[in-house]
Amino acid sequence: MKKVLVIGIGAGNPDYMTVQAINALNTVDVFFVLDKGEAAEELIDVREEICRRFITHANYRIVKVPQPQRDRASADYKAGVDAWHADKAAVFETLIGEELEEGKSGAFLVWGDPALYDSTIRILHQILARGVTLFDYEVIPGISSAQALAAGHKIPLNRIGEPVQLTTGRRVASGFDIDSVVLLDPGSGLRSLREHDATIYWGAYLGTADEMLISGKLKDVADEILRVREEMRRAKGWIMDTYLLRRDGTE
Amino acid sequence: MKKVLVIGIGAGNPDYMTVQAINALNTVDVFFVLDKGEAAEELIDVREEICRRFITHANYRIVKVPQPQRDRASADYKAGVDAWHADKAAVFETLIGEELEEGKSGAFLVWGDPALYDSTIRILHQILARGVTLFDYEVIPGISSAQALAAGHKIPLNRIGEPVQLTTGRRVASGFDIDSVVLLDPGSGLRSLREHDATIYWGAYLGTADEMLISGKLKDVADEILRVREEMRRAKGWIMDTYLLRRDGTE
Repeated sequence: MKKVLVIGIGAGNPDYMTVQAINALNTVDVFFVLDKGEAAEELIDVREEICRRFITHANYRIVKVPQPQRDRASADYKAGVDAWHADKAAVFETLIGEELEEGKSGAFLVWGDPALYDSTIRILHQILARGVTLFDYEVIPGISSAQALAAGHKIPLNRIGEPVQLTTGRRVASGFDIDSVVLLDPGSGLRSLREHDATIYWGAYLGTADEMLISGKLKDVADEILRVREEMRRAKGWIMDTYLLRRDGTE
Repeated sequence: MKKVLVIGIGAGNPDYMTVQAINALNTVDVFFVLDKGEAAEELIDVREEICRRFITHANYRIVKVPQPQRDRASADYKAGVDAWHADKAAVFETLIGEELEEGKSGAFLVWGDPALYDSTIRILHQILARGVTLFDYEVIPGISSAQALAAGHKIPLNRIGEPVQLTTGRRVASGFDIDSVVLLDPGSGLRSLREHDATIYWGAYLGTADEMLISGKLKDVADEILRVREEMRRAKGWIMDTYLLRRDGTE
């Protein structure tokens, strides 16, 4: 049987690698890397650095394939994502089918935690449901950007006995009732919320040498954050940021 | 200056330790361990095992103190927790004041992630706000039980573009609108929800040799989970479990 490992490598800092992830890494024969184009070259570098630093043998291959492009112009968000996942499933199925021999292990190295806002697990489910390409698989958790954010600001994500929501920029733009960690916001979520009575804890490039942290009342710091994130995005060619919104009230 | 490290050790599996946590561990002079009484002896053992396994020198001390008891009979949940935190703050302040010399590092090893449903960070904030005992502190994230749960079941926590809520048994008993990961449920949350149209992914002793996973429609498996968790709780003297509730609908 072929084996596929979905390994969470943590959000940014190679030191976020767990012992479990390092042990798993050392059992892998082939790493599958999706190339997202030049802007994200650094993100691929992190994966290669992790392989170089933590693998204690030289018996592994890295197979790079271009990442299928998502049609962001699609009017129907869900349909756009579904089509993109279908494209990725076709690529993954070919990789597992053609680049991985029986009895060998292949791996996808997932930024952050594979269980949070990442499509790899879902795509493996789709391939297995088709029933053409068979494999065992395993998921190894990693430190997510939400956790890196909380650690950077030295704050708990939840208030005492209260819930925390992990959500997307798209969703939070329509308002938030409970403390929310916002992932995948291209800026529109934050722009729409800047007049709310809430405290924001924002972080970008968390866990890396470029880590930036800003916190304060949304009214006071939202514009500064929007300016800084745009500057950084231009300078580096990409940005990964996340933030916690906490409605004003008790600590 | 004294330094206090709040180190997430992950939820259950010592292999969840990150490289960052291991490096931090090796800089610590004194570990502060709260003894919760016999039932949780195993949980203290995990901390000692982690120290033995990952620290490469012998120049550290472990200081154990009895954990202050929480008044669970208190009618006002929040007031009960506040009073408990005040007791813990007094204990922590004494530990940092009397057991940690200037220029040395002390550490609290936190199960899971210090940012999720743990009081350590909040209590350090309280001590610093009092202004009597001064110290620098740092937070190191760890793999939470929610992530161990998702990895065990090999599922994403979120649906495509949808939010996920992390919440408590107490809160979810009043219903849930979005996919919810439930922590700290003594069983009452689950009992109140067993007729809901939802799928549950439940796990106990996640990441340990005793890990148990059960999933299925709430209506079909809730009673089995309640039975198993009670049996295990009696057999081991303690239980730590968590679950994801996903309203029936699209994957």
